[in-house]
Amino acid sequence: MTANDIIDKKKKGQELTKEEIEYIINGYVQKKIPDYQISAWLMAVYFRGMTDSELLALTNCMSQSRDQVDLSKISGIKVDKHSTGGVGDKVTLVVAPVVAACGGKVAKMSGRGLGFTGGTVDKLEAIPGLQTEITEDKFFEIVNKIGLAVMGQSANIAPADKMLYALRDVTATVDSIPLIASSIMSKKLAAGSDKIVLDVTVGSGAFMKNESEAINLAEKMVAIGEGAGRETVAILTNMDIPLGCAVGNNIEVVEAIEALQGKGPKDLWEVCENIASLMLSLAGIGTKEECLKMVNQSIQDKSAWKKLQEMVEEQGGDASYITSPEKFTAATYQEDIVAQEDGYIDHMNTEECGKAAVLLGAGREVKEDDIDMTAGIHFFKKTGDKVKKGELLARAYSSSNEKLTVGVKKLREIYHITSNPLPEEKAILCYVTKEGVKR
Amino acid sequence: MTANDIIDKKKKGQELTKEEIEYIINGYVQKKIPDYQISAWLMAVYFRGMTDSELLALTNCMSQSRDQVDLSKISGIKVDKHSTGGVGDKVTLVVAPVVAACGGKVAKMSGRGLGFTGGTVDKLEAIPGLQTEITEDKFFEIVNKIGLAVMGQSANIAPADKMLYALRDVTATVDSIPLIASSIMSKKLAAGSDKIVLDVTVGSGAFMKNESEAINLAEKMVAIGEGAGRETVAILTNMDIPLGCAVGNNIEVVEAIEALQGKGPKDLWEVCENIASLMLSLAGIGTKEECLKMVNQSIQDKSAWKKLQEMVEEQGGDASYITSPEKFTAATYQEDIVAQEDGYIDHMNTEECGKAAVLLGAGREVKEDDIDMTAGIHFFKKTGDKVKKGELLARAYSSSNEKLTVGVKKLREIYHITSNPLPEEKAILCYVTKEGVKR
Repeated sequence: MTANDIIDKKKKGQELTKEEIEYIINGYVQKKIPDYQISAWLMAVYFRGMTDSELLALTNCMSQSRDQVDLSKISGIKVDKHSTGGVGDKVTLVVAPVVAACGGKVAKMSGRGLGFTGGTVDKLEAIPGLQTEITEDKFFEIVNKIGLAVMGQSANIAPADKMLYALRDVTATVDSIPLIASSIMSKKLAAGSDKIVLDVTVGSGAFMKNESEAINLAEKMVAIGEGAGRETVAILTNMDIPLGCAVGNNIEVVEAIEALQGKGPKDLWEVCENIASLMLSLAGIGTKEECLKMVNQSIQDKSAWKKLQEMVEEQGGDASYITSPEKFTAATYQEDIVAQEDGYIDHMNTEECGKAAVLLGAGREVKEDDIDMTAGIHFFKKTGDKVKKGELLARAYSSSNEKLTVGVKKLREIYHITSNPLPEEKAILCYVTKEGVKR
Repeated sequence: MTANDIIDKKKKGQELTKEEIEYIINGYVQKKIPDYQISAWLMAVYFRGMTDSELLALTNCMSQSRDQVDLSKISGIKVDKHSTGGVGDKVTLVVAPVVAACGGKVAKMSGRGLGFTGGTVDKLEAIPGLQTEITEDKFFEIVNKIGLAVMGQSANIAPADKMLYALRDVTATVDSIPLIASSIMSKKLAAGSDKIVLDVTVGSGAFMKNESEAINLAEKMVAIGEGAGRETVAILTNMDIPLGCAVGNNIEVVEAIEALQGKGPKDLWEVCENIASLMLSLAGIGTKEECLKMVNQSIQDKSAWKKLQEMVEEQGGDASYITSPEKFTAATYQEDIVAQEDGYIDHMNTEECGKAAVLLGAGREVKEDDIDMTAGIHFFKKTGDKVKKGELLARAYSSSNEKLTVGVKKLREIYHITSNPLPEEKAILCYVTKEGVKR
């Protein structure tokens, strides 16, 4: 067995064995196989794809390239949730306390954001004092006590994935569905939960621009999860429009708190109630319908809101920010965008909305960048909304007047007003389970 | 412009510009672009192919990565000839003196052999004293004087091609038709001839195993040659059966001399007379039919045979070996393979014939190997020939009794006798010109 033979086999479209995939991945991690052979192999994978058994072998091998997280110290069925990212995606901040309030166990490892998609860890750090860099023992202890904790993803999780990603990034092999699927699932498998809910975002603000690509990705990830013995369900959600109204760190946390208070935006809540009830039903707490009722009950009785307060306290944060969200620091500078004419808001490119927020200071362009927690955009009107001339469309925030100027310029370019009404945007597109696509 | 963008563009099947191809190739030669980006690009080229204008840009860029050979010091139209290699291919040794005897100019740069295909330079060195490591000035002087010289290919010819080939060899990207075409043509363009005849071998003993692949390669090479302003014609020849009867160095030179004496094998002469008359007609010496007559006349009047003697003398060799080929050293050991039953020789795998010759010592397994000039195989019977039990099929030669044993074992495995007659093998399959395929 040589790397050249394995590249050749993949290139010819033949199925690789588990041993051949392990030879490639372990050889790369151990620096026995050079970059130039791996990049040729990655490009062959881009063109030939991978079968379900190849994908499972690849993902298991990447996942096992580090120590697995052992969640057995947490009692009950642990359900993980992962989003493929989007603009205004504060779903974890809402869903995790809801699920815990309904009796589920959420041991969540989260990452930081890069580019136009924010990270849960960054958003949580908007709450003064809150620590995500906690030990595994502390993490287990909190989940056992209150049903919920969020820990920053360890840097050495799945080093094979990290090495492969760095190489894909410079060899035009990022946009390969099997490679994306195995990268995500290698982290999910290593993180140790029993069940996995995947929020696969679709549209102009997501990595997957259309539904068929997203279904393809979802099917691959579900096949990997199920192949590894973890029940896995994907929900495809609309990211062709920013989720909710707030994009930014402080203001997204505030919007998540409002959702837990029962006064969040309708589209955000629709996604959250579906994901939360799916997680609870996978945990065996009830049927999907029963869980949906429990989820809405946890909002009405404020138990989900209180669960977030508990979590913040346990992780060292100032819970008064959750009870009084007006305490979050406001931006030094703000500017309004208003409608120039009557009509309907035409389709907004959501990736461009995310990029406008980054220009305002809300995101990182490179890993080392600091984030302006006060920066962001509040959307008062989104795609399809009817507006009158002079009406407020959006408000931009920044701690830098210079950044405000460039961010607002971009934001104005995103808004177009048309005289024709648009079809209504759906929040949930479909589900993908091992049985197939369900609408 | 970044390498990643160019890889991505190729991956998506978009046509690269001349500037983008030059950025990749020059960047690689100057070590500004790393191996791992080039290998991903090569794999994308494998899957997407290249347009004629991409190929011309690639080939020109590779060709120009060294000083071009300037053949203007040689008067008249210079016609080059290249073979994609095969088993028993001693065509250059016959064709070059024939063309020179008919008034053509042959300034031939040749390489050494690797694996089962021999190199002209190796074969010429079977003649005692003959030098192929001559200066360019000496080379021009001989061609101007007698119409013919053969020079060893300079090691620094087209370094881009050398670097790319080394990388392709370990990244399963050798068998890409456009990459093969540009590699061959970059050397042909740099070698400076006005017209180019390409002998594209097809079959089990050639790199191209079937006719459609070979036509594809021929079309690409013709397009490159014509695009670079050099009239180029390809002739597809049968390498599904060893060419002629001799495979090895000394014995192939002897067979070439016999062909020049008008007593060589029929299939070898058919290939040689066609290639020689094609070269002469491209040089403007006459129509294809007129040139074919001249070629046969040069055998009858011994002028071609005498031309080889002249060339050997001019390049410092002992020409008495050409007049008295029995002077070539015979092998120390030999062994006969005889028919075990009556019937017809079944299809012989020609690559395996070549490998048997390498086992006997006639070729190199790695570049550094020495060649046993006396080793080889004389085929008395080939595919389709009728045989009787006990009749001589082949004779193996080696200077090592040990190598003789393994070579003969392999050779016996190649011969199978069937009771059914086989269709006759054609020597010439078709021609490919800029107008298309001609049969």
